[in-house]
Amino acid sequence: MEKKVLWINPVTTDLFDATFKSEFEKVKQPDTIIDVVSLSPAPGPTHLEYNCYEVMVMPEILRLVKKAEDEKYDAAIIGCFYDPILRAAREVTRKTIVTAPAEASLHIAATLGESISIIVGRRKWIPEMKENVHKYGFGEKLASFKSLDMGVHDFQRDHAETMRRIKQAVREAKEKDGANVIILGCTIEFGFYREVQEEMEIPVIDASLAPLKYAEFLVEINKKFGWGHSKLDGYQSPPDEELKAWQLF
Amino acid sequence: MEKKVLWINPVTTDLFDATFKSEFEKVKQPDTIIDVVSLSPAPGPTHLEYNCYEVMVMPEILRLVKKAEDEKYDAAIIGCFYDPILRAAREVTRKTIVTAPAEASLHIAATLGESISIIVGRRKWIPEMKENVHKYGFGEKLASFKSLDMGVHDFQRDHAETMRRIKQAVREAKEKDGANVIILGCTIEFGFYREVQEEMEIPVIDASLAPLKYAEFLVEINKKFGWGHSKLDGYQSPPDEELKAWQLF
Amino acid sequence: MEKKVLWINPVTTDLFDATFKSEFEKVKQPDTIIDVVSLSPAPGPTHLEYNCYEVMVMPEILRLVKKAEDEKYDAAIIGCFYDPILRAAREVTRKTIVTAPAEASLHIAATLGESISIIVGRRKWIPEMKENVHKYGFGEKLASFKSLDMGVHDFQRDHAETMRRIKQAVREAKEKDGANVIILGCTIEFGFYREVQEEMEIPVIDASLAPLKYAEFLVEINKKFGWGHSKLDGYQSPPDEELKAWQLF
Amino acid sequence: MEKKVLWINPVTTDLFDATFKSEFEKVKQPDTIIDVVSLSPAPGPTHLEYNCYEVMVMPEILRLVKKAEDEKYDAAIIGCFYDPILRAAREVTRKTIVTAPAEASLHIAATLGESISIIVGRRKWIPEMKENVHKYGFGEKLASFKSLDMGVHDFQRDHAETMRRIKQAVREAKEKDGANVIILGCTIEFGFYREVQEEMEIPVIDASLAPLKYAEFLVEINKKFGWGHSKLDGYQSPPDEELKAWQLF
Amino acid sequence: MEKKVLWINPVTTDLFDATFKSEFEKVKQPDTIIDVVSLSPAPGPTHLEYNCYEVMVMPEILRLVKKAEDEKYDAAIIGCFYDPILRAAREVTRKTIVTAPAEASLHIAATLGESISIIVGRRKWIPEMKENVHKYGFGEKLASFKSLDMGVHDFQRDHAETMRRIKQAVREAKEKDGANVIILGCTIEFGFYREVQEEMEIPVIDASLAPLKYAEFLVEINKKFGWGHSKLDGYQSPPDEELKAWQLF
Amino acid sequence: MEKKVLWINPVTTDLFDATFKSEFEKVKQPDTIIDVVSLSPAPGPTHLEYNCYEVMVMPEILRLVKKAEDEKYDAAIIGCFYDPILRAAREVTRKTIVTAPAEASLHIAATLGESISIIVGRRKWIPEMKENVHKYGFGEKLASFKSLDMGVHDFQRDHAETMRRIKQAVREAKEKDGANVIILGCTIEFGFYREVQEEMEIPVIDASLAPLKYAEFLVEINKKFGWGHSKLDGYQSPPDEELKAWQLF
Repeated sequence: MEKKVLWINPVTTDLFDATFKSEFEKVKQPDTIIDVVSLSPAPGPTHLEYNCYEVMVMPEILRLVKKAEDEKYDAAIIGCFYDPILRAAREVTRKTIVTAPAEASLHIAATLGESISIIVGRRKWIPEMKENVHKYGFGEKLASFKSLDMGVHDFQRDHAETMRRIKQAVREAKEKDGANVIILGCTIEFGFYREVQEEMEIPVIDASLAPLKYAEFLVEINKKFGWGHSKLDGYQSPPDEELKAWQLF
Repeated sequence: MEKKVLWINPVTTDLFDATFKSEFEKVKQPDTIIDVVSLSPAPGPTHLEYNCYEVMVMPEILRLVKKAEDEKYDAAIIGCFYDPILRAAREVTRKTIVTAPAEASLHIAATLGESISIIVGRRKWIPEMKENVHKYGFGEKLASFKSLDMGVHDFQRDHAETMRRIKQAVREAKEKDGANVIILGCTIEFGFYREVQEEMEIPVIDASLAPLKYAEFLVEINKKFGWGHSKLDGYQSPPDEELKAWQLF
Repeated sequence: MEKKVLWINPVTTDLFDATFKSEFEKVKQPDTIIDVVSLSPAPGPTHLEYNCYEVMVMPEILRLVKKAEDEKYDAAIIGCFYDPILRAAREVTRKTIVTAPAEASLHIAATLGESISIIVGRRKWIPEMKENVHKYGFGEKLASFKSLDMGVHDFQRDHAETMRRIKQAVREAKEKDGANVIILGCTIEFGFYREVQEEMEIPVIDASLAPLKYAEFLVEINKKFGWGHSKLDGYQSPPDEELKAWQLF
Repeated sequence: MEKKVLWINPVTTDLFDATFKSEFEKVKQPDTIIDVVSLSPAPGPTHLEYNCYEVMVMPEILRLVKKAEDEKYDAAIIGCFYDPILRAAREVTRKTIVTAPAEASLHIAATLGESISIIVGRRKWIPEMKENVHKYGFGEKLASFKSLDMGVHDFQRDHAETMRRIKQAVREAKEKDGANVIILGCTIEFGFYREVQEEMEIPVIDASLAPLKYAEFLVEINKKFGWGHSKLDGYQSPPDEELKAWQLF
Repeated sequence: MEKKVLWINPVTTDLFDATFKSEFEKVKQPDTIIDVVSLSPAPGPTHLEYNCYEVMVMPEILRLVKKAEDEKYDAAIIGCFYDPILRAAREVTRKTIVTAPAEASLHIAATLGESISIIVGRRKWIPEMKENVHKYGFGEKLASFKSLDMGVHDFQRDHAETMRRIKQAVREAKEKDGANVIILGCTIEFGFYREVQEEMEIPVIDASLAPLKYAEFLVEINKKFGWGHSKLDGYQSPPDEELKAWQLF
Repeated sequence: MEKKVLWINPVTTDLFDATFKSEFEKVKQPDTIIDVVSLSPAPGPTHLEYNCYEVMVMPEILRLVKKAEDEKYDAAIIGCFYDPILRAAREVTRKTIVTAPAEASLHIAATLGESISIIVGRRKWIPEMKENVHKYGFGEKLASFKSLDMGVHDFQRDHAETMRRIKQAVREAKEKDGANVIILGCTIEFGFYREVQEEMEIPVIDASLAPLKYAEFLVEINKKFGWGHSKLDGYQSPPDEELKAWQLF
């Protein structure tokens, strides 16, 4: 079953586009078409550590989601662990599935273990992410957030150092906080999960691979069974007349 | 104590600006300066019933908040009961207080009663608002949401009909849902609270008056005691270099 | 990617095995091998409406799960909406993924909507199922349970009557309880979801199709990324010596 | 707008009355009249660290609240962080607003930050205070209680020592417990908040200043909008006949 | 094992003392000594429907509890379903066990069923009782409160009418609210439980019999195993010097 | 009142039967008849540290419970702190009361203190036990689980070492986790509670004595007042025809 999936890097740099694309190509299902886009390269945020950065790029993310539906993508993934504009994106699409890293990672983690630690870059990130953990229903399963004290653009700078810090955080999460499953809470923490997982014998969810697979899964049940985002209440689509009159897209 | 407060109508119409301004002038503290602005009249949403409408105007709201701080406003109120971009607004300001209708109304309601019903326009609004009720900590105190089956622009069209529906909803909230305090869950449901409150003998919180007063209160404790939004974690401000380099404002 | 999946009908009748098998064949991924087994036909429960019936067949279910691993199944699905022995099954397998209808349906429903109603056969079933809803983290998203007042073996007896009752229950769930996504809370409520979903415009999750697809998804991320049930705490496997000494399998 | 406010020191000593009065005079709104009273100097508790001490003075507190209404006070503040008899006080008043330190401090703290630590004198105080934190809805926002290991009458004995302990507790709250806003959980912990707040860069709520300002705020919305404690359920006033027949006041 | 138990009717009338005494004599364990006292007959509340009535008699209740310990009672029961001053009473006793109707009834109900309805006299009572239900940990098991629209002194006036209303309330609780166990939420609702229970086939907990038996149980484990109220934190006893200096008892 | 109670050691060894019997004889009520049985000595689990071990013996436990009712036992206690098959056991009995160690210990602990720590053998046990703590309603009162790093059969091997570890765990629970009441979370941790309790001045609940006394209590209210497990919903008994047809017992 063909699955056309768009990964949106919601930052104004294509720095990671090629890497994501090539990583996704390795792990996608054979008949999945995966594209990766980022925002227009006008001056703008190259990371979304602050919620105000998210806000400034939200309309462009939303336009990309809308465009994804116009271009017949079956799913769009908003590639930031804050899961920005998930509700709005599900409103503007009528058929295209939308998911995001925290949602996907948490659903997987809650199936694989019972006590989840999330390894983040900075303490600053925690309150917004914690809000999402509770919103999705996994507050009781949250063991801890652990901060690496690194920014988004630090993760890939010195791999050995990042690896060292991740392992230290995972060790504490396991031993002190009682975690039995780990989420790497940023899409740019890619490339680390497998070594940590194998060496420390604990499932480690990668925040970019998880939503890709969750998207394929959601597309499959959508195509097979017609199961899509409910259009009754919170994800109801706006009337076409307003969209047109207000030239939102 | 002078308090300079900006009310932001986050819609692309100035339809309600004068009314709000004149209503606020009647009830503000003597030394409060209250200004009301709305968004630029370019084609755009004249109401925010859909989260995707919110998203499209979020950057402009954020810029207005930032500008409010530059223009020495002590407080900015984001005048929509969805409380859009509260986190981002508190990040970009370093001193200016930011609040919004649902936050203000819920804190008041939870002090005045123990079981809250929120009267909304449409069922569509409920999930996003319910998320906020839980986020702010008042989930246990929520008796019900009641829908009037009216859009934002219907409330002021036929006052008698709106009043009739509000009273019917409040009656059910009191009798069936066990509510003992009511919030009118839209800033445009203005002008109704007093008659309903007196006739039905239940406190009825108006969603535009509540945040004005809450803002004055927050400004006062900010000026007197230095109590402002914590800059430690979730409301930490972004670094100036990034703001400049990315030309966000 | 080959995925070998075993569906266990945890009842002492093969009444539904062929039907399930043929339904699954229609919707499985091309390279999935799906087998359906039921328990030995000794006198014993032909449905599990009572927890004591579950208990009496639990050892045999567990042995089937263990055997599934020995026979290189990638996943085993315990086909009852009470999700019996999920913890024990995840202990005895070291590699094979185990899932079940309620877990799978709830994760899907919580992604598609925000307020879930579960349509059950009898009121008797509710407390045990409600326990699971809370255990999995979805208590806040539960709109209601609706009982059809039918036993497991009634659902397929008079399709028109079952359909009539389901539609009536879904109508109430939507209109009175505020549900925006539905789960048919028994694997034997099969064959109804699509008509209800299309006619009533609300996602309706079928409790046998959901776990099949969730199993395929879990197998895929297991094979690709090594993500399996955490062996650290609650799903830790027992020592081989004890298993042997006690001849449990 | 004139606001006549009564602060009740619910202890049988006027030791702190003058200090509170003079501190309040400095920070009150210009047209607020603030009076401070304590209980009759008969032998009795000079602090309320034990709930049984509270109980023994509760009737006198209640009589003072009732008298406050007779004397046209707009608000009464029950000056102990256990918030004693808030419900009873709201019953016996028909118009006068009643608030208390924990309620006021928590509403403010939850608006300013997202993770609250409360600095108390002794571990003994924690269970009763924790009950209130949950009752008011802020359980999810509670980072920790930190004990200074000091009694109520120790706080003002050796200011340097008290300050040292508070700073140590705040440091731990910030660094280990993830707090981003602090409440000093006793009205007699006065005089410390500002230095701690400025030096440690975290909002520090003073438990005597907070309820004064919250009372002014509540009086203002009461006078302007008629918003007072709901008389429908939990704060319903008793019938006059019973009050008279039983000579309660 | 001798168990000396004091039932305190916390009202200024001995109207119900003899009845309680004689009912308790019928059901107590053979070696239990049960005494019933009420408050001094000075003008004062003859019921505690309002929290302010409770407050006015709290010191006398506390003195009776203290006296009970002095007179070697093994347990004191504070006979009102609001469970007044449970914490204070556990502080002032060092050995004597203290319990109360709501605590006892809820622990029993939560063991016998999974969904509890509480039949109260008036809607006014609900918020304070609901607070206790949550405080004790049984919020998730609460099906509903049902009000009979009767005051405390109405229950025994017209038995047929009271019975009729109780049955109607229980019927609704069972059928509409999903209750499977009932508590009669006032000690003066005595004499009704058995007929309702047998006729309606649902356990019906009587709020005066439950705490008597719970007290016997707690005394037994106290005498046998030394298990009494923890003196570490919330129930820590005050220092004798203060009790003496302040002449509290 | 005669109370006939059966303690079921749900393991395939009678190793502890005599000890339990003799300990119970010392503390039971005079007219209580207490019998202790274990499972058939066929090869099988001699402890239930793994949920899969529980599952394999569940049918035999259930048969013993059913037999207990046939033999006119008033109560059956399933003697493992995981409280296995409580629901099923309450279904198959129509009159006999069923309880278990965690349920009994938690109800007692929540009455005696406000913050509970549970001392377990291994970290492995925690998730399943934590599920029960939340299910019973005591999640908010849980201070911590502390692991002794010992298996079930280690507790009685070297009493001094076990005692040393328990005291160390209790010390940490009190000082670091804020516990004010302790539960020894395994029936085989017998013989230690009194010394720990007296030396460390904190109530310490023994997981075998607690359910014996709770059973006597439940039997007493059952015989006196007819209060038994609700047969309406979750504990409804299965129809006799099915039990017979399927030869389950």
